[in-house]
Amino acid sequence: MITVAVDAMGGDNAPSEIVKGAVNALNARQDVKVALVGLPEVINRELVEYTYDKGRLDVVPASEVIATEEPPVNAIRSKKDSSVVVALNLVKKKQADAFVSCGSTGAVLVGGQLIAGKVKGVKRPPLAPLLPTEKGVSLLVDCGANVDARPDHLVQFAKMGSIYMEHAMGVKNPRVAIVNIGAEEEKGNALVKETFPLLKECRDINFIGSIEAREIPHGQADVIVCEAFVGNVILKLYEGVGATLVNEIKKGMLSSFRGKMGALLVKPALKKVLKKFDASEHGGAPMLGLNGLVVKAHGSSKAKEVTNAIIQCIAFQEQDIPGKIRASLNPEVADSK
Amino acid sequence: MITVAVDAMGGDNAPSEIVKGAVNALNARQDVKVALVGLPEVINRELVEYTYDKGRLDVVPASEVIATEEPPVNAIRSKKDSSVVVALNLVKKKQADAFVSCGSTGAVLVGGQLIAGKVKGVKRPPLAPLLPTEKGVSLLVDCGANVDARPDHLVQFAKMGSIYMEHAMGVKNPRVAIVNIGAEEEKGNALVKETFPLLKECRDINFIGSIEAREIPHGQADVIVCEAFVGNVILKLYEGVGATLVNEIKKGMLSSFRGKMGALLVKPALKKVLKKFDASEHGGAPMLGLNGLVVKAHGSSKAKEVTNAIIQCIAFQEQDIPGKIRASLNPEVADSK
Repeated sequence: MITVAVDAMGGDNAPSEIVKGAVNALNARQDVKVALVGLPEVINRELVEYTYDKGRLDVVPASEVIATEEPPVNAIRSKKDSSVVVALNLVKKKQADAFVSCGSTGAVLVGGQLIAGKVKGVKRPPLAPLLPTEKGVSLLVDCGANVDARPDHLVQFAKMGSIYMEHAMGVKNPRVAIVNIGAEEEKGNALVKETFPLLKECRDINFIGSIEAREIPHGQADVIVCEAFVGNVILKLYEGVGATLVNEIKKGMLSSFRGKMGALLVKPALKKVLKKFDASEHGGAPMLGLNGLVVKAHGSSKAKEVTNAIIQCIAFQEQDIPGKIRASLNPEVADSK
Repeated sequence: MITVAVDAMGGDNAPSEIVKGAVNALNARQDVKVALVGLPEVINRELVEYTYDKGRLDVVPASEVIATEEPPVNAIRSKKDSSVVVALNLVKKKQADAFVSCGSTGAVLVGGQLIAGKVKGVKRPPLAPLLPTEKGVSLLVDCGANVDARPDHLVQFAKMGSIYMEHAMGVKNPRVAIVNIGAEEEKGNALVKETFPLLKECRDINFIGSIEAREIPHGQADVIVCEAFVGNVILKLYEGVGATLVNEIKKGMLSSFRGKMGALLVKPALKKVLKKFDASEHGGAPMLGLNGLVVKAHGSSKAKEVTNAIIQCIAFQEQDIPGKIRASLNPEVADSK
């Protein structure tokens, strides 16, 4: 049994879609408990709509809400009774195993580090969303708020990402690549050139070298390592180009009678492709290297994505990802046992 | 009349598509002369196929070819009789106004700086491709090989890009934005945070602030400023996501009888959208800030793209972009005149 604390107040569609998603997760899986954190009267007003196992759902009161535009460090420090802080304290006190939020990314990242705390040896916990590709999904690490990373950070990202893909996602011997502007080892900026030989030396990852951005959608690597500024550009451009292209195709089809007829016929096929390339289908982005699991789902998440994010926590918990990260980053401890 | 030196030996489809593209440019425009640079016997073997105004086409011999994988600085220094070096020397000696190549990006960038030379005051000549957007095109500057840029480089990129979009592309008062991971001024990595206030102070550009990668395909800015590593990621991911999505949509449609019927009907609409989002439709990427015009077209260019790249040189030449860049970066000289 896993207990997931869910931020009922965070995201564009809070609280209704969050509550619905949590109830759906309870109804889909018997091995999940949910703690809905937020304003009880608001949450309860939503809950009366649904049928679910009341023994596996708690409402945990939190009187404050952190808005997306608030400076995260301040918000975490001053709003002690916010849904994010209260939920993360449940993780810290081991009353919950995981925390899922669709709210402010900054607050979740800062709160995750300050409250849940880092696994011993972890320098920077990265945010690692799954990117849809032709072949399935790849883990993009880091897309967090910690820009200007050092080579040793990137090496840890590679190790943590590899553990996640292998144990939470079931990819055997995941291929790890570093984002670069050419395939040759001498290419790249200072950070990539310094990191490349360090990754080559890592015996516990399957490092396959550089990956150009063009190759990412083809699924050429399972773990894609970069610093957070570049990761953020990749994640957001992925969404932007995809959405624009699909919009333009729809507009193009609907601009003629012939196209409209065709559009009716291709609609199911088009929908299937869009679903495959929809990042939200793949649950939220885990923040790796924390004591406990913190998952950041998209701000625009609906019930389905919330449910997916909650269910995603099960494998993370069962496989003890934090324990495996601890062992990987602290080999001397593991050896001395 | 403008004279364009064309690298007949560079690119995946050299020499046949290059020669064809050059001939088509001559036949499309009466105000263009072309110097085809490369192995004369190879070029002439292609030329016999076509009808064109022989008075406006020269074949300039060059016995060597620079391959894509050669380290560029070495190649430019040692292969004095390569098509790239010979063509750039034509520009240097003012025997040609412009140079178009589909060959090694590195060699073109290094050769452009070393042989054609930088406009006075230019610290780093950037490579600035046009990205297709919903609303038209945006100039992405820099996508070159000079990574790890400084804030003063980015400020020059913004100024040069603004001049190019206004005078070569006819965009009035082009909107300039810097690539960032959030819209707020305090967001970003060290480079962006340092550059932001400098751009705000520039009175000769229309700086509109940060742009998130998600907004780029919507055409929210005319000039998109970033350092070359990030620029390269944006350019290549644009191509990669677009190509993958279109492929998947095609595959999806062709996987059922219903989809196949629909595909026949939507084909013209789909083609139109793809053409709009095809970067190669917009000619090559100019290298800004050089004495003379250097245009790098895609390595996979066919005749059509070569023709577009040659014709693109006319506006650049007519508008004296290098002169305008010189005046913008050396205000004291302009004032003292």
